[in-house]
Amino acid sequence: MEDIIYGRNAVLEALKSGTRTFNKILISKSVHPSEKINEIIDISKEKGILFQFTAKENLSKYDEYNHQGIIALVSPIKFIELEDFLSKEHQNSRIVMLDGIEDGQNLGSIIRTCVCAGVDAIIIPERRTCPINSTVEKASAGAINHIDIIKVNSPVSAIQRLKKSDWWVIAAEAFESDNYYDVDYNNMNFVLVMGAEHAGVSKSILKLADFKIKIPMLKNFNSLNVSNALSIIIFESVRQKLISER
Amino acid sequence: MEDIIYGRNAVLEALKSGTRTFNKILISKSVHPSEKINEIIDISKEKGILFQFTAKENLSKYDEYNHQGIIALVSPIKFIELEDFLSKEHQNSRIVMLDGIEDGQNLGSIIRTCVCAGVDAIIIPERRTCPINSTVEKASAGAINHIDIIKVNSPVSAIQRLKKSDWWVIAAEAFESDNYYDVDYNNMNFVLVMGAEHAGVSKSILKLADFKIKIPMLKNFNSLNVSNALSIIIFESVRQKLISER
Repeated sequence: MEDIIYGRNAVLEALKSGTRTFNKILISKSVHPSEKINEIIDISKEKGILFQFTAKENLSKYDEYNHQGIIALVSPIKFIELEDFLSKEHQNSRIVMLDGIEDGQNLGSIIRTCVCAGVDAIIIPERRTCPINSTVEKASAGAINHIDIIKVNSPVSAIQRLKKSDWWVIAAEAFESDNYYDVDYNNMNFVLVMGAEHAGVSKSILKLADFKIKIPMLKNFNSLNVSNALSIIIFESVRQKLISER
Repeated sequence: MEDIIYGRNAVLEALKSGTRTFNKILISKSVHPSEKINEIIDISKEKGILFQFTAKENLSKYDEYNHQGIIALVSPIKFIELEDFLSKEHQNSRIVMLDGIEDGQNLGSIIRTCVCAGVDAIIIPERRTCPINSTVEKASAGAINHIDIIKVNSPVSAIQRLKKSDWWVIAAEAFESDNYYDVDYNNMNFVLVMGAEHAGVSKSILKLADFKIKIPMLKNFNSLNVSNALSIIIFESVRQKLISER
């Protein structure tokens, strides 16, 4: 099994993270020279990773990807186990659980936001989630290599397991719920559950939630994109944390 | 000139808004029946808009779009003039200006967020911005029909014009700036300027800014996607507004 990473940012971030094994990097001879390409070459040399300059035509089999002239063939993402994650010490830790996000762009963008917000791990269910593929890696701008990703068979069992270890469960839900900024996110370990754009968080998880939160809208329009909704909520927790530390 | 709108949400929202002239709606005979499709048919009947059920093959020329079996041929978006916008009365009004956003997905997603946040208008420059096409309309989930879009030749002149009318200028800038949540967004008309992902807000606009704000990151990673960054900032202004009204 081999993954493809494409585009300067995604390749560079994967290299820097040191969490992936690189089999080969292919660079088009006609690529625009840039600082990032130079950095990729420098790190490859330093780490003894094979890289090849090649004719543009040789990359044509990858043209379904918007590869900007650079492709890396790497080992797949390593997932971690929920138990391994929980065996570490946690204080004011934050997990994001995605309940059925099927769009690769959204998934990548959510991972990127989670890394910027210092989220500790992302839980994704095996089923009803888009695979972690090149699109996700690209949309995450390589962020996927900087955060623990936990795959679970059953999101409900994972939530029950977290509750047993005194994690608080916060579910984003559009109706009959508190405003997201009225929750005090400090001084607890919490898991924030975001649902699919149309279906929302599943009923069985809503039942287990300690808080159900919504983002109040100023205009009566259907809703926010899930990646934007997550950004708004998780950065409210960052805001509260930074203000409490003043 | 005719625009194509595709996908259930985008078509439905354009119909509801009443801001577009529909020439024709094409629905694939093999489309999954759904509440939204029924609503589209009901509104079309009510408004006397031509709709046709057609064999899937007849939509094949639109297959570059992820159309979910529904296509509408409509009049182009109507833009409004900055002077016309300013001639209305404004109190605690909010504009978002996009300085060089070239990705259609991002642009659509930003428009959707702006509508949810009750932003009054979006200013986009004629040049260095992706065209308002079907991709943008789809990514906005039809939100583009629910907000004033102002196209300007020169973003700098537009900012100068706004300042002349006492609008405050807030620019998002990653370095040497205030945290976005330390600005008091109430009791002023403001324009929030968001820059392109790599280049940021142009220097000539930064010079005119009353506030330069950043989103503090908890992990040293390159940056947020521009659509997520906008969501975080604009919903902080919503949060402040709703809290001040309690």
